[in-house]
Amino acid sequence: MRWWGWGEERPSGLPEHAVERLREELGLPAGARGERVALDAVRLPESRLGDAARAALERAGEVRDDREARIRHAAGRGLPDLLRLRRGDADPAPDAVVFPSGPSAVRAVLEAGAEHRVAVVPFGGGTSVVGGVEPVRGDCEAVIALDLANLGGVDLDRPSLLATVGAGLTLPALEGRLSAAGVTLGHFPQSYEYATVGGCVATRSAGQASTGYGRIDDLVRGVRLSAPAGDLALPAVPASAAGPDLRELVVGSEGVLGVITEATVSVRPAPRVRRYEGLAFSSFAEGAEALRRLAQEGAAPDVARLSDEEETRLNLALAGDSAKTRALRAYLRARGVRGGCLAIMGWEGDAAGVRRRRLRSLRVLRSAGGIWLGPPPGRAWARARYEGPYLRDDLLDRGVLVETLETAHRWSALMDVYRAVGGALRSALRARATPPLVLCHISHLYESGGSLYFTFLARAEQGTELEQWRAAKTAASEAIVGTGATITHHHAIGRDHREWLRHETGDLGIEALRAAKERLDPAGVMNPGKLLP
Amino acid sequence: MRWWGWGEERPSGLPEHAVERLREELGLPAGARGERVALDAVRLPESRLGDAARAALERAGEVRDDREARIRHAAGRGLPDLLRLRRGDADPAPDAVVFPSGPSAVRAVLEAGAEHRVAVVPFGGGTSVVGGVEPVRGDCEAVIALDLANLGGVDLDRPSLLATVGAGLTLPALEGRLSAAGVTLGHFPQSYEYATVGGCVATRSAGQASTGYGRIDDLVRGVRLSAPAGDLALPAVPASAAGPDLRELVVGSEGVLGVITEATVSVRPAPRVRRYEGLAFSSFAEGAEALRRLAQEGAAPDVARLSDEEETRLNLALAGDSAKTRALRAYLRARGVRGGCLAIMGWEGDAAGVRRRRLRSLRVLRSAGGIWLGPPPGRAWARARYEGPYLRDDLLDRGVLVETLETAHRWSALMDVYRAVGGALRSALRARATPPLVLCHISHLYESGGSLYFTFLARAEQGTELEQWRAAKTAASEAIVGTGATITHHHAIGRDHREWLRHETGDLGIEALRAAKERLDPAGVMNPGKLLP
Repeated sequence: MRWWGWGEERPSGLPEHAVERLREELGLPAGARGERVALDAVRLPESRLGDAARAALERAGEVRDDREARIRHAAGRGLPDLLRLRRGDADPAPDAVVFPSGPSAVRAVLEAGAEHRVAVVPFGGGTSVVGGVEPVRGDCEAVIALDLANLGGVDLDRPSLLATVGAGLTLPALEGRLSAAGVTLGHFPQSYEYATVGGCVATRSAGQASTGYGRIDDLVRGVRLSAPAGDLALPAVPASAAGPDLRELVVGSEGVLGVITEATVSVRPAPRVRRYEGLAFSSFAEGAEALRRLAQEGAAPDVARLSDEEETRLNLALAGDSAKTRALRAYLRARGVRGGCLAIMGWEGDAAGVRRRRLRSLRVLRSAGGIWLGPPPGRAWARARYEGPYLRDDLLDRGVLVETLETAHRWSALMDVYRAVGGALRSALRARATPPLVLCHISHLYESGGSLYFTFLARAEQGTELEQWRAAKTAASEAIVGTGATITHHHAIGRDHREWLRHETGDLGIEALRAAKERLDPAGVMNPGKLLP
Repeated sequence: MRWWGWGEERPSGLPEHAVERLREELGLPAGARGERVALDAVRLPESRLGDAARAALERAGEVRDDREARIRHAAGRGLPDLLRLRRGDADPAPDAVVFPSGPSAVRAVLEAGAEHRVAVVPFGGGTSVVGGVEPVRGDCEAVIALDLANLGGVDLDRPSLLATVGAGLTLPALEGRLSAAGVTLGHFPQSYEYATVGGCVATRSAGQASTGYGRIDDLVRGVRLSAPAGDLALPAVPASAAGPDLRELVVGSEGVLGVITEATVSVRPAPRVRRYEGLAFSSFAEGAEALRRLAQEGAAPDVARLSDEEETRLNLALAGDSAKTRALRAYLRARGVRGGCLAIMGWEGDAAGVRRRRLRSLRVLRSAGGIWLGPPPGRAWARARYEGPYLRDDLLDRGVLVETLETAHRWSALMDVYRAVGGALRSALRARATPPLVLCHISHLYESGGSLYFTFLARAEQGTELEQWRAAKTAASEAIVGTGATITHHHAIGRDHREWLRHETGDLGIEALRAAKERLDPAGVMNPGKLLP
């Protein structure tokens, strides 16, 4: 991955007409550019790792403290991470990067960390968008990134549809191994190309098809955590009444309790057929009601997304004035839809199953006002499904601040959350004279509610982008917790959401988590500054 | 409920021919009877509740320390509980019973308990079969049962299919309230008639239709726990990535962290149609394989049970030599099934959904060797679905020791667990010269595995029934954990499974739970002697 952004080097994916359009809508000055220094110009503080600590770590695994390794582990891929890297600030870089060869080496690193007061930041794909891998020393002498790339391995129990997987395996590598046996995990977050299994488990992630396959917390049956105080190995049983479910303490623990070294996850037969199609609704509220019915009538597809009017409008505008988009607009006008909202529905499985489930979904969607648009919008979505973070780099290059955030709430409160968050973002950014575009889609369906995924774009304030981001993020977060929605549906807490966690857990919930942390990590070396306020 | 057993007074449900059959198979001496003293003869120790503690509790709620109230809260409904009560031993009786009027009164009780060193045992329906409500003082001065009968109340969010329910409401009372709004929780454990919502949540229960509706841990979205250190109110959001899921710490906490006062649970439209039907398989292994396919091909009914050969044989034998059972046997012989295994499948929902899902299930079952027997076996099962605990009383009256235990494991290991547990029970009881009948059925299906529910019957050892029970229970539990299966699929840990919990959580898992308990219940008054070893 390029050190300052997402993915490998590639040409901009933003066509000129799209840039022109954004320039108009956001009031960008001509030739606006985002700052981006060269790698040589990045400021990197001296490593603070002492000789004794270093020697102890070297007995546990490969230790690197060269410039590139440290910069590559200095940040995740949240907007503030990228803004800092692009301006050449790698200050919260780890003092070294350690690559343990396996679970026993992880234990040796944790023991060395506790003994020498070295903070340990577990590092999988480094794709956190909430500051989850930011190296923070806390009250330690030094901080290392613990890169889990060597923890691979897949052990499949085919009759039970369970796979036991090393935490450092990337999702594509896992799918490659599983597909040889005809099965799939079915977990496709936007970070799919780089995310690791351990990272997904540690952050309680959801993928684009999680409405069908289930979130990672649904898929994880067993898990191993290597904590400074010892190992917690929770076996994969299908269900249990043996007290509180400790798996759910490990899932989402974001490295603050220990290092997830292995997970046993449910897999499914690999789909032979994938159908993604588009539908239009006359309004976001109408579409949301249709999605509620899908979820509650047992007719939900595997992928179900509904863009609001603004996201639909902007997506069509940025797609340009091609023959296809003109035809689509004409078709919708003919059906009485002006503006309207685009939904993408996807079904995966064997041919008979997809046929049967698709008919059930479409029956509900049509009776709820949906207008079927056929496969083209679905294909367009599938082509671009992992494009978001690449486009973010392109937009930052053009002087556009772009950020996403997400939440979930009950169906009865979802439209209130939608209005509150959109309103908060617009107010906060208008107040800085950078009026935003705020886009939203429902990304995941549950019987009791849905998730809202917001994207906002604004002219970047040159030099004060971080303050600008913080103002918008704070306003949105306050609005979210003000409605009783969750501060995050699938991005995790990390550094950026810490102060809002207590709205969900209460003070006593935080205390319960702290108590578990103190028992599992008595020296307090695990991922300081994350999750717990 | 009658003080010494289950349900209200009623004539024995055991026909003479069934008693005769058991007499033969178990080697009961003629006229064998189980001991059962009169209420007046029950030995009850003096209440140890001090005046100051009593005064403090009286400010919090109604306090009763009369003989009947104390005896009625002296035990759950596990076999050892019943054996003790029947012989007139109510020694672990609470020093008093407190009936808080609502959540704030619960808080007042907990504060009084912490101040005056009075242990608090939350008491819902009192149906625990693992000693979960046994009053234990631990290192406190006294112990009270906290009867939650007054914590009722139902608040329905219809668009979100969520109901917020007081912990003390019984399941039938809840279903009554929900049915007025056309919805159901769909949670039907064998203890349904007496179990409370709070008790189900505290014990991570599963109901007979949980293969379809989901276990209580699937149904609980939000929960309130009143702990001595404060309240933990976890909101009902459909999904969240906000750190570890603290709901899963409260669900299954069995009163050791605090008192569950309220839960928000998912509900479903009430079914218009319920179809229960029987199928036969030539062997338990063949049937289990069919059930695995049901679960993994998305074709599972709401109720799915498969009896092994011995349970099938005994059920048919006890049903007697009626025209119906003769016809069934003749039919099976004609289809080449001798002995064989009976399965019950049930579908609930609207007419179209039941029709569609039933056809899917039957297609899989037939292709896996199932022989359809039609509705009669299903109707017989539905009539008797809550009869188990009544029959246990009748059997104890006749000098038969009968106990059930259950577990779950992956499909790939399920037959190993089946053989190991059956073998352990037979060895342990043969060694005491009381060779048992060991029956088993698969009771719940999951994609990754299933649950096994064992029943064993043996001639009761007059006077040493408790030792006899303990020998069998220990052997079965050792066999269960020896295979890596869970020590309990839906009966919880309570008193009886404590020593085996660490096989599942490891020492560090126990430590994590202890840490949470010490933070939430610093004085250690909550339900001593349960859950934690």
